[in-house]
Amino acid sequence: MSKYFPNVPNIEYAGPKNRDKFTFKYYNPDEVILGKSMREQLKFSMSYWHTLVAGGTDMFGRDTINKNYGYTDVEAHTVAKAEAGFELMNKLDIDYYCFHDVDIAAEGETLSESFKRLDNITLVLKDLQKEHNKKVLWGTSNLFSNPRYMNGAGTSPSFDVFAYAAAELKKAIEITVELGGSGYVFWGGREGYETLLNTDMGREIEHMAILMRLVVDYARKIGFTGDFYIEPKPKEPMKHQYDFDAATSLNFLRQYDLLGDFKLNIEANHATLAGHSFQHELRVAAINGAFGSVDANQGDLLLGWDTDQFPTNVYDTTLAVLEIIRAGGFTNGGLNFDAKTRRSSSSPEDIFLAYIAGMDSFALGLRLAAKIIEDGFLDEFVKERYSSWDADLGAKTEAGNVSLEDLADYAAANEEPVPSSGRQEYLESTLNQIMFS
Amino acid sequence: MSKYFPNVPNIEYAGPKNRDKFTFKYYNPDEVILGKSMREQLKFSMSYWHTLVAGGTDMFGRDTINKNYGYTDVEAHTVAKAEAGFELMNKLDIDYYCFHDVDIAAEGETLSESFKRLDNITLVLKDLQKEHNKKVLWGTSNLFSNPRYMNGAGTSPSFDVFAYAAAELKKAIEITVELGGSGYVFWGGREGYETLLNTDMGREIEHMAILMRLVVDYARKIGFTGDFYIEPKPKEPMKHQYDFDAATSLNFLRQYDLLGDFKLNIEANHATLAGHSFQHELRVAAINGAFGSVDANQGDLLLGWDTDQFPTNVYDTTLAVLEIIRAGGFTNGGLNFDAKTRRSSSSPEDIFLAYIAGMDSFALGLRLAAKIIEDGFLDEFVKERYSSWDADLGAKTEAGNVSLEDLADYAAANEEPVPSSGRQEYLESTLNQIMFS
Amino acid sequence: MSKYFPNVPNIEYAGPKNRDKFTFKYYNPDEVILGKSMREQLKFSMSYWHTLVAGGTDMFGRDTINKNYGYTDVEAHTVAKAEAGFELMNKLDIDYYCFHDVDIAAEGETLSESFKRLDNITLVLKDLQKEHNKKVLWGTSNLFSNPRYMNGAGTSPSFDVFAYAAAELKKAIEITVELGGSGYVFWGGREGYETLLNTDMGREIEHMAILMRLVVDYARKIGFTGDFYIEPKPKEPMKHQYDFDAATSLNFLRQYDLLGDFKLNIEANHATLAGHSFQHELRVAAINGAFGSVDANQGDLLLGWDTDQFPTNVYDTTLAVLEIIRAGGFTNGGLNFDAKTRRSSSSPEDIFLAYIAGMDSFALGLRLAAKIIEDGFLDEFVKERYSSWDADLGAKTEAGNVSLEDLADYAAANEEPVPSSGRQEYLESTLNQIMFS
Amino acid sequence: MSKYFPNVPNIEYAGPKNRDKFTFKYYNPDEVILGKSMREQLKFSMSYWHTLVAGGTDMFGRDTINKNYGYTDVEAHTVAKAEAGFELMNKLDIDYYCFHDVDIAAEGETLSESFKRLDNITLVLKDLQKEHNKKVLWGTSNLFSNPRYMNGAGTSPSFDVFAYAAAELKKAIEITVELGGSGYVFWGGREGYETLLNTDMGREIEHMAILMRLVVDYARKIGFTGDFYIEPKPKEPMKHQYDFDAATSLNFLRQYDLLGDFKLNIEANHATLAGHSFQHELRVAAINGAFGSVDANQGDLLLGWDTDQFPTNVYDTTLAVLEIIRAGGFTNGGLNFDAKTRRSSSSPEDIFLAYIAGMDSFALGLRLAAKIIEDGFLDEFVKERYSSWDADLGAKTEAGNVSLEDLADYAAANEEPVPSSGRQEYLESTLNQIMFS
Repeated sequence: MSKYFPNVPNIEYAGPKNRDKFTFKYYNPDEVILGKSMREQLKFSMSYWHTLVAGGTDMFGRDTINKNYGYTDVEAHTVAKAEAGFELMNKLDIDYYCFHDVDIAAEGETLSESFKRLDNITLVLKDLQKEHNKKVLWGTSNLFSNPRYMNGAGTSPSFDVFAYAAAELKKAIEITVELGGSGYVFWGGREGYETLLNTDMGREIEHMAILMRLVVDYARKIGFTGDFYIEPKPKEPMKHQYDFDAATSLNFLRQYDLLGDFKLNIEANHATLAGHSFQHELRVAAINGAFGSVDANQGDLLLGWDTDQFPTNVYDTTLAVLEIIRAGGFTNGGLNFDAKTRRSSSSPEDIFLAYIAGMDSFALGLRLAAKIIEDGFLDEFVKERYSSWDADLGAKTEAGNVSLEDLADYAAANEEPVPSSGRQEYLESTLNQIMFS
Repeated sequence: MSKYFPNVPNIEYAGPKNRDKFTFKYYNPDEVILGKSMREQLKFSMSYWHTLVAGGTDMFGRDTINKNYGYTDVEAHTVAKAEAGFELMNKLDIDYYCFHDVDIAAEGETLSESFKRLDNITLVLKDLQKEHNKKVLWGTSNLFSNPRYMNGAGTSPSFDVFAYAAAELKKAIEITVELGGSGYVFWGGREGYETLLNTDMGREIEHMAILMRLVVDYARKIGFTGDFYIEPKPKEPMKHQYDFDAATSLNFLRQYDLLGDFKLNIEANHATLAGHSFQHELRVAAINGAFGSVDANQGDLLLGWDTDQFPTNVYDTTLAVLEIIRAGGFTNGGLNFDAKTRRSSSSPEDIFLAYIAGMDSFALGLRLAAKIIEDGFLDEFVKERYSSWDADLGAKTEAGNVSLEDLADYAAANEEPVPSSGRQEYLESTLNQIMFS
Repeated sequence: MSKYFPNVPNIEYAGPKNRDKFTFKYYNPDEVILGKSMREQLKFSMSYWHTLVAGGTDMFGRDTINKNYGYTDVEAHTVAKAEAGFELMNKLDIDYYCFHDVDIAAEGETLSESFKRLDNITLVLKDLQKEHNKKVLWGTSNLFSNPRYMNGAGTSPSFDVFAYAAAELKKAIEITVELGGSGYVFWGGREGYETLLNTDMGREIEHMAILMRLVVDYARKIGFTGDFYIEPKPKEPMKHQYDFDAATSLNFLRQYDLLGDFKLNIEANHATLAGHSFQHELRVAAINGAFGSVDANQGDLLLGWDTDQFPTNVYDTTLAVLEIIRAGGFTNGGLNFDAKTRRSSSSPEDIFLAYIAGMDSFALGLRLAAKIIEDGFLDEFVKERYSSWDADLGAKTEAGNVSLEDLADYAAANEEPVPSSGRQEYLESTLNQIMFS
Repeated sequence: MSKYFPNVPNIEYAGPKNRDKFTFKYYNPDEVILGKSMREQLKFSMSYWHTLVAGGTDMFGRDTINKNYGYTDVEAHTVAKAEAGFELMNKLDIDYYCFHDVDIAAEGETLSESFKRLDNITLVLKDLQKEHNKKVLWGTSNLFSNPRYMNGAGTSPSFDVFAYAAAELKKAIEITVELGGSGYVFWGGREGYETLLNTDMGREIEHMAILMRLVVDYARKIGFTGDFYIEPKPKEPMKHQYDFDAATSLNFLRQYDLLGDFKLNIEANHATLAGHSFQHELRVAAINGAFGSVDANQGDLLLGWDTDQFPTNVYDTTLAVLEIIRAGGFTNGGLNFDAKTRRSSSSPEDIFLAYIAGMDSFALGLRLAAKIIEDGFLDEFVKERYSSWDADLGAKTEAGNVSLEDLADYAAANEEPVPSSGRQEYLESTLNQIMFS
């Protein structure tokens, strides 16, 4: 199948010395690293929207790349887009994809027309999945692009808009189930506010919780056994979004008793927009038992918006993979490239080169994470650093068997404690040595 | 009493036309606004540290103002500092103060020496409080300046450091109770990390929770009936602090079942460092039932560190007071000026001018907030904006009596919903009109 | 004329107590403030693009407001848009407008078709200007939206793109001259880079200078006597733009000897994206003799992109007007509302309410700036602060008549100098008092 | 000589596989890379202040490391500090050092006492330099820590403070000349403002220019043939500093005709605080003919202050070295570690581990930069990208031999130009491949 990208061959592993641009240098799908194939460890996923739909438009300019796949007719284009997606996944040896409802089929004039289009393309996708052995990592509904959602969907001040969102969510979860998706994502791009002057924040958040609860109940009823995810993002498009970061989303999930059904989908660039590192957000998800899935990309820390670049910083991919592995690895989740080619990467080839860049960067990250784990140095350092808690009064304190008076007495009887060096420079230097030698 | 600031008279209300620098233009303590005296509405508090201790040192330069109060001997200086504080509160007609243990008495060489000093000054402060009719808004322990806490106190990797912190906390809560404080604050300046490479975040946070639980239990045992507060701050001094913002702190309090004893102390400049407005953090605290107290200052949004400026932006003070009033006003909490004079405001006079600036800005904010409430325009706008939720299926949805299918059916039966204009520009313009006319 | 906005009356001054939304509360065009009418002091200008073209699209959603003016046919729409603009200016009593070539007439398929459209609409605009007594504040060419400019226009690596930009600039300056514009702006939205990996920065900047020189020479030849402006912006759409801020642009103008023909067009939100206050950038322009014109809007300092909000912060408008007046006021320049209604301000009414908000905020700013100047307090403070330079060795030093040895001798003979308090809090407090009383 | 750091051996090159912490893994001083020894390419320098003076104090805590070198007496301590510095340079095989006047000898009570101390230590340092074959990379005067400079030194509103600064500068340049320094740095930490309300920016900047001119004239008179440097920093300690970034400093140098004597000292963390990458600032310096010297460290892009971390990010060191080499390499300048150990890196060992980390990271950066240059891929890509300018009308345009009309005619005769893909992802991916294979 080479209908849509005739100039691009199947991308195969050729090793780190090979300079052919259409090869993987680090990603060798079936090579086993840390007990699983790279394919299973990384569970790469194509994002339908950035990959097959978006054409480079930004706030100051039009599309630079044509994604009509040879068709202007809506129906034909819809099918061609799907086929192009499967050709791309095949050539890149990607097993999963993620989609919004409006990615796979453009909205119709009415709700029923939209639903009809979704039903049609769902049949096509099911066949394509079967034929090419691909799966849905997660589905979602776009509740932010249509003007009706300009004030929010689940948090819209208008009840009618809220109900409309409910209808779209119902359909989106139905097709996700139909396509065998193992996850469903809530990203609340308009669930927030532009100004507190016109906003009843408490009421809006309560509505959002009600809606999520209704969706969970319905999904479980129709047989969805996968994970729900909140994907935190602090702002953009809104001035403030309610799912600001991992901790904020967890507070919401705890408050409304939704933590049993939800995990987090951590997006690298959203992390940094919230003032956190990617690693940090992964760690927060993990220690709250909510690590779910990953939207992989990279941001530019000198820019204040979501650049969604293909990930190429190997420090970030290495440390992210370390967090993922330490969180137990992926179960229902995976690593979705929520990344777009730069606006000036304007040829179809660039899409493949970008995926190769991202996949190789994570593959190299996995190889280096394995090296770090096998080396043992970092783990050992951390273990040793907290060793005073492993026995005696430390262990008793962790077990909950002391009083404040006990601790005060202990302190009074001791000499001034001297904290040990954190050795940051040495750790960073050793990390370099492991990574670059 | 005019021993320490002989050139500064008692500051009295003289109205907005008066140009004498040593008068209040807006703060008229016993004038009633919205049913309570300004004094009760605002509950101003002096911060012991910035006001009586800090001398202008920054990372690039030494003190510019002398705060030895005429004494170099430790004990005499300790008492003089307290007396100066009460003179200042008297002259400014401030009823409350807040302190860290190390503010009221410098640390000794040993734990027992430090405690002895604290006991001595506590007696002095009790007398001064009685004599001048002043109260403690809240106390706290400085668990971040001493090198022993360089890796954290409650989150130190060293159990001995943790125990030492426990001893200091025990003492700090005891003197807070002794001085009749109505609050106790946890600000975790070193409770965070410099690098994840050496940090077991999950274990550290668990230790922090254990320590807070022990402190609460002990405090309740010795009769403390006030509020505990977490004061969120995202970073500085650490790269990342665990109490990042209101929502993060609430997640922690929920996770460790501490929400019953804790509220939040919202600091304006910490809010903006976390990427939020001051208003936003107050609102988050309120809708989570955790609005407690306020550290009033202002930051500079073009700077990336805590500038702790005296608050003079009247938009911010007005909108903050609106949030405070809508949250029900202060109970145990109050409005503490966690603010320092600029390094180049180098005369003792400047301390008074800065407090006048801050108090007048909040007094004007209160007057304008009252005007906004009495005007009714903003409240009415918000109420109307959500009115579709007040009856019919909207109300039923809020009450939890619908299914996703019900909502989808309703949406299918309706026409395309049209969201109403948010009118941000008109609201901002009307706000100006109310404030400036 | 009330064809396009039939529900909006002429907006007239009604004073600060009036609550009719379609009136000015502070802008009274012919009232004289500081020796000139408000109209002359402020020289308000409508931005063609945000006002007549943009419909609310952002990176995550489609238009929320329809700006087809009743026509889908290109030519008819082009004329209707112009007429709507003049109706709007008339109703708001705005005397000036600013435009990009592509705002007044959408690009054609070819260069010659585009130029033909521009010629046609120029005739229409000339008539409308004459009929309604309106003027062009400045014109410009959009060299950033078309995909051909994705790598830059004057700084494109492709010479053919550079030449194309030259052709468009030639036309844009011709129509600006034809319409009697008193200014011409260069905003280099794509004149920068996405990554240094593929960029020859030195060569690109030299090309930009060559192009500006050619445009200046041609414009002077065809009779343009107005000002050229660079409008600095640090980033967005590009990762880095060469006209980062005022100082960077001035360095470029000095380096390539263009300072004689160029001044700066300072945009409020671009200032803050570059890490500066609006005031700061105005001051830098002024002290370099390059204050030219203003793009008035406001940003959100908690957001990292250009929000282009209508200006409503009265501190900012007051301090900006103070800078403008101290720089001598506008000559060829003026105050262009480079501002767009919020995406959720979705009715045609909102455009007027937003302009009223912006115009009233600057009108109030002008009134308060006048009050500050007449009060004299701030000016006096600053004058006094530097008074040691007004005589003796200070004056001699300013005159260039000392050596380093002279100064060292003087210092050695003197006692330790004691710098005076900067009194920031007192100044801010007094500013409030002047503004709010 | 192993008096001050008895537990630390001489650090020697042991190759990338060696795991002894006290060895270099990448820095092999006399190995030739790109035609020069690593020693000559990198010209490492010790910073006196961070290395020998600062003890870990931050805004929220005291020193964590003792730097008294066994002496409390001022004079003995001054000499011991110098000796410790030379021991450290010897053990690390560092050839250069940089200093502020107050680093080498603490200020005295009077100007003459301070000068006397400087004279004394200068003799000691001269001997140590001779004995150990070390050189001064650059000297400077600390005109920001003493309270007298709280409002600035060269830009102080007080003429007496200005004169005092002149005296200190005169002395500092004298001892720099005496010690054979090849550079002299101006870092204007207080040359800026806290608020524009009290600031005459134009007058202040003019004073700064006058002072620099006087210093240059005096220095040349006494035989200084090295470079003067401005070290840009945007803010901190001041709200705004006049030497904001490279371009701003260049504008100032051009305006006051100082560019002949000055180059720039680019500091990595200052670059990022100004919103630029380190690379960017190096490039700006280079294309303005002002590349001089480097203050090497790294910042944390998620933090808003100068963290001055030892550089360990190998992407940054590699790309910085590439810029340095392309700018022609160092002449009078070098690579000064303006970096401090983390506050919790609290042992003397950590100072060495941190220097090893920084030196190895730049050594690895040099090795990788050489690999990139020898590979040729990146250079070739950029050359090709601009090739349309190398001949025909492109070359004629660069030579200044076209008119705007010529270009417009050319564009009209051509078809629509199609810009070529920027290939960012492919370039980043290939960079990884070169770096990691």
